[in-house]
Amino acid sequence: MIIVLKPEATKKEIKHIEDKIHELGLKPMLSVGKERTIIGIIGEEDKARIQPFEAFPGVESVMQIQKPYKFVSREFKKEPSVIKIAPGIEVGGNEIIIMAGPCTVENKERLISIANAVKKSGAKVLRGGAFKPRTSPYSFQGLKEKGMKFLYEAKKITGMPIVTELMDPRDIPLFLKYSDVIQIGARNMQNFELLKEVGKTRKPVLLKRGMANTIKDFLLSAEYIISEGNHNCILCERGIRTFEDTTRFTLDISAVPVIKKLSHLPVVIDPSHCSGIWDYVAPLSKAAIAVGADGLLIEVHDDPEKALCDGPQALKPHKFDALMQEMRGIASVIGRTIA
Amino acid sequence: MIIVLKPEATKKEIKHIEDKIHELGLKPMLSVGKERTIIGIIGEEDKARIQPFEAFPGVESVMQIQKPYKFVSREFKKEPSVIKIAPGIEVGGNEIIIMAGPCTVENKERLISIANAVKKSGAKVLRGGAFKPRTSPYSFQGLKEKGMKFLYEAKKITGMPIVTELMDPRDIPLFLKYSDVIQIGARNMQNFELLKEVGKTRKPVLLKRGMANTIKDFLLSAEYIISEGNHNCILCERGIRTFEDTTRFTLDISAVPVIKKLSHLPVVIDPSHCSGIWDYVAPLSKAAIAVGADGLLIEVHDDPEKALCDGPQALKPHKFDALMQEMRGIASVIGRTIA
Amino acid sequence: MIIVLKPEATKKEIKHIEDKIHELGLKPMLSVGKERTIIGIIGEEDKARIQPFEAFPGVESVMQIQKPYKFVSREFKKEPSVIKIAPGIEVGGNEIIIMAGPCTVENKERLISIANAVKKSGAKVLRGGAFKPRTSPYSFQGLKEKGMKFLYEAKKITGMPIVTELMDPRDIPLFLKYSDVIQIGARNMQNFELLKEVGKTRKPVLLKRGMANTIKDFLLSAEYIISEGNHNCILCERGIRTFEDTTRFTLDISAVPVIKKLSHLPVVIDPSHCSGIWDYVAPLSKAAIAVGADGLLIEVHDDPEKALCDGPQALKPHKFDALMQEMRGIASVIGRTIA
Amino acid sequence: MIIVLKPEATKKEIKHIEDKIHELGLKPMLSVGKERTIIGIIGEEDKARIQPFEAFPGVESVMQIQKPYKFVSREFKKEPSVIKIAPGIEVGGNEIIIMAGPCTVENKERLISIANAVKKSGAKVLRGGAFKPRTSPYSFQGLKEKGMKFLYEAKKITGMPIVTELMDPRDIPLFLKYSDVIQIGARNMQNFELLKEVGKTRKPVLLKRGMANTIKDFLLSAEYIISEGNHNCILCERGIRTFEDTTRFTLDISAVPVIKKLSHLPVVIDPSHCSGIWDYVAPLSKAAIAVGADGLLIEVHDDPEKALCDGPQALKPHKFDALMQEMRGIASVIGRTIA
Repeated sequence: MIIVLKPEATKKEIKHIEDKIHELGLKPMLSVGKERTIIGIIGEEDKARIQPFEAFPGVESVMQIQKPYKFVSREFKKEPSVIKIAPGIEVGGNEIIIMAGPCTVENKERLISIANAVKKSGAKVLRGGAFKPRTSPYSFQGLKEKGMKFLYEAKKITGMPIVTELMDPRDIPLFLKYSDVIQIGARNMQNFELLKEVGKTRKPVLLKRGMANTIKDFLLSAEYIISEGNHNCILCERGIRTFEDTTRFTLDISAVPVIKKLSHLPVVIDPSHCSGIWDYVAPLSKAAIAVGADGLLIEVHDDPEKALCDGPQALKPHKFDALMQEMRGIASVIGRTIA
Repeated sequence: MIIVLKPEATKKEIKHIEDKIHELGLKPMLSVGKERTIIGIIGEEDKARIQPFEAFPGVESVMQIQKPYKFVSREFKKEPSVIKIAPGIEVGGNEIIIMAGPCTVENKERLISIANAVKKSGAKVLRGGAFKPRTSPYSFQGLKEKGMKFLYEAKKITGMPIVTELMDPRDIPLFLKYSDVIQIGARNMQNFELLKEVGKTRKPVLLKRGMANTIKDFLLSAEYIISEGNHNCILCERGIRTFEDTTRFTLDISAVPVIKKLSHLPVVIDPSHCSGIWDYVAPLSKAAIAVGADGLLIEVHDDPEKALCDGPQALKPHKFDALMQEMRGIASVIGRTIA
Repeated sequence: MIIVLKPEATKKEIKHIEDKIHELGLKPMLSVGKERTIIGIIGEEDKARIQPFEAFPGVESVMQIQKPYKFVSREFKKEPSVIKIAPGIEVGGNEIIIMAGPCTVENKERLISIANAVKKSGAKVLRGGAFKPRTSPYSFQGLKEKGMKFLYEAKKITGMPIVTELMDPRDIPLFLKYSDVIQIGARNMQNFELLKEVGKTRKPVLLKRGMANTIKDFLLSAEYIISEGNHNCILCERGIRTFEDTTRFTLDISAVPVIKKLSHLPVVIDPSHCSGIWDYVAPLSKAAIAVGADGLLIEVHDDPEKALCDGPQALKPHKFDALMQEMRGIASVIGRTIA
Repeated sequence: MIIVLKPEATKKEIKHIEDKIHELGLKPMLSVGKERTIIGIIGEEDKARIQPFEAFPGVESVMQIQKPYKFVSREFKKEPSVIKIAPGIEVGGNEIIIMAGPCTVENKERLISIANAVKKSGAKVLRGGAFKPRTSPYSFQGLKEKGMKFLYEAKKITGMPIVTELMDPRDIPLFLKYSDVIQIGARNMQNFELLKEVGKTRKPVLLKRGMANTIKDFLLSAEYIISEGNHNCILCERGIRTFEDTTRFTLDISAVPVIKKLSHLPVVIDPSHCSGIWDYVAPLSKAAIAVGADGLLIEVHDDPEKALCDGPQALKPHKFDALMQEMRGIASVIGRTIA
């Protein structure tokens, strides 16, 4: 940690800061420059971080040197983490995992029909929402427990593991029973109580990036889960909020190489929610493969006009199938595979 | 609702859209322009909104005319809402209510000492966090239930009602017992399960704007609370996320007149969290009064160096007292009062 | 154009608006809904746009139906535009054009050596800055005219056409003499006087998107150039400003399919400036090819440590060469070519 | 400057960096921490900044300690700068200067009539655009030289000095002749050639903040002007681009106290352009006074329906007059004056 002093900081103020650093069991290191004096703190920065040095007289600013997270960092674990979802289905390995399905579970028949279609095209995991976070209280809120059961039936029929969103810590028993991957949505990325609860389970968690959260925030939210003991964490970039309004969110595709540099966790991309419009899903999916994503979460619906949620962003099964072909080609160029 | 058609939309596609509108019990109105054909929907737009017209062939875009919220809107209720917090303490009336206190409850003595100080200067409500949403799992997470009890004791001693943050629906009984206003933090503004739960109570709710949420999103979150039956909703602007990094967030001060135009709900400002630095708190507080805010949420701490959370943004009691004086002057110029 | 009226708009106010529409030679069309009355304007929206209807009493908001640009739009020209840069070098066709070179021209020898290297790897156009827009007045501002001459010499030796940035309308004669493509930088995307001046030439223009400009703004800036008569306009996405700080800007990769839907102009991507860090350049370049970009603008430097500008984002020639191989593979999967 | 090394940095890499620092005539200072090693550079950071240390092997990141600007900084000049615009009219002193007038000069009679009205209400400077930067080439571009002459005539009649926007360096002679303050618009804040040119004059410059520019960028653009010798620089906050769409831009009101902490230059606020809607102008103007702005730039028009540009954001003269009264009251509370 570097404490930058104001030009007018007094000796007494400097002494006071140094004393406090010693009290924490750390060693201050003073560097008197021509225009600025700084105090470096050698040693474990975590200890220093609990002290609000910005509030000390004479301090202009405080710069962190060390990363604020541990378990999620590349330094903690050099090799990429591979998260096992089901027998033979792992995220973070050489194979890129495609998760597909409807935005919302609407009824059993449609769900199974879509599941069969995406499975045939090569998707390995079935996505579908039973509990839906909707901006408006007047929008369809999901089939809830009934939807969870439909997902479970679709799993039994197709053999595909299920990823679905959890919104309330009180629903965890239901998710332990029916889901294979617990999704934490963008709007709950900093719902820390929920993160702690899924951290206490050992289910794989798919953590979506909040629409206004930096990658540092994102990794700290993953740290919440892992520090509770659940190392099965998959990160998902799904677009951030910017001024651009032709797409619903702005896909931050750079997040993939940035996270891969900072962390060992796998990263997948959701091209459906970020764009909000189906004809952008194919180019963004191909870009996601090329940039190095470990998986994709794609919305597929066989009758988007009748979808109860986000119809405009769903691909029809035949378009999804064509996209899978192209993605396989790109995966092969960069030395990876798609089933 | 206006459905804008693609230039190449066919008659069959137009017919298909019109049929669907009739099915919903609404009346389509076709306008054929030189470059674009549009279909207006006359009648209750809510009914049309459930249909994903963007997913229909031939549709270029869909424009909403009516607001997506009801109970929070000015059209639903013309006069400003006045929310009663405690006998003689109302937010949204002519008096501007100052809520002050430490970021976090640290111990009973300090809390009571700060409470007495802010009360003496004119604050009407005591703020203090017992459950703390922290970006890092390694930061101090609050005293939790113990903190709630300290707040309750401070209330008994000072007579000040308490505003404190709720993060987990399972803690509601605790909040019903010990708090006067339930705060929903920015990170939980779209934690819809939590919104529904506080909507089922009749306690006043202070809903903070999410850092990446538009005012429309914000009003829809308030609509979640009110549509469950709890009309005691106070909105709080606390800064949005932008590229500017000299302040922690960018205070969107325009949100006050904008919300007052769209809604009857009272709006308060939190100048401490948005700036993150104490010496910006006074100018922003004065601006908040001048722009028309109904209240302020200000962090005050008697020893910021020792604060367990957000020390750098806390005002010392004597600075808070001086600020109160100036704010009273400004309130008087615009025809309002501060105690 | 749709004029949405306030619920309380009077008959007199409505009449006044209708009269004004008639005056403009257009036809108002009133639709009285249950909660809102709207006035549609049938006919050429351009004529209506000059009138500030938002300022009329009784008006709540105004919605544009037609696009505000013409020449750049897909409706004006259905087939993609192909811009000829030099004999056999066209942007917007099936071949993806790679433009590479140093950020800044530093000296003749280095420039020629880099030019030879990138040419050997398959780059078709040489990039290099002679006039440099630098945030700080104390940063190196470029070799200016001397740099232009070095670029010209590099062109004579390598046969590669030159793309380089213009900042001042007074330098146009120099650019007409020495450059093949005039680059307008992000900071000048709304320097309308400069746009008009390059619009008067017939040189190909590479227009970079401003860091805070929507795609609509971007297309309108291109419209400035084309409406002056210069149809040789290439658009370049180079990252927008967001809150994320691990990269210098956030590459808005969705801009490629969005622009291709709205416009016939070719779109290239600059992965070097948006990330600011060389090891993100390769994954972003591959993503750019996969998403459908018509070209790339990549910084290459043989000794980044000594670069006078933006060294940290430059690829070394051997890394650039390896990247070209991978990009060729991806181009082939999507049915395109790279030399 | 602090150079943070990668955990795996080798001794050879460290030596190489230290050698380079010595070469620059500076002194490296190595601190070996438990998890990170850093190299501090003692001495003039400017010299170190020209070297792209991020591009050196073994370097993880580089942190600046010193501010990148000089002349604009509080450390360079402790007392606030007071910029003289005309005899008895100074920006940055105790008096808050109100600049008002139409967005665009439309004709002589209207301009003079508005000028007389705003003068009567207490405005000290007349604003009005002759050269207009418009997003669309089809919008009214201003009366240009003719508009400048009308402004000059209005000045002769009313005695009010003129502030008007310059867009092209070739028009400087015209501005030297007819204007009193040269405005550089938001879209040209990083048009560095234009900044250098106005830096060579001695006319007061009103520099508007770019819509995507940080305060650091803003101060560096002012540094361009001052480093050319023109110290008469007034900064203007006019809103930044964010995701919020109920206002045209988001007024960053915190910019006033932030800039006043970092710089000695006066800061004014433009509440008309940031909101884009006249009924937000009054509350934002009052907030601007309360937050400590040194002046305001307000659009006033006597017939907004007929305004050729930005009619919806203009105040009518009687509303402006009422606002002036309230602003005087607020100014007095904070110990300042308005004429």
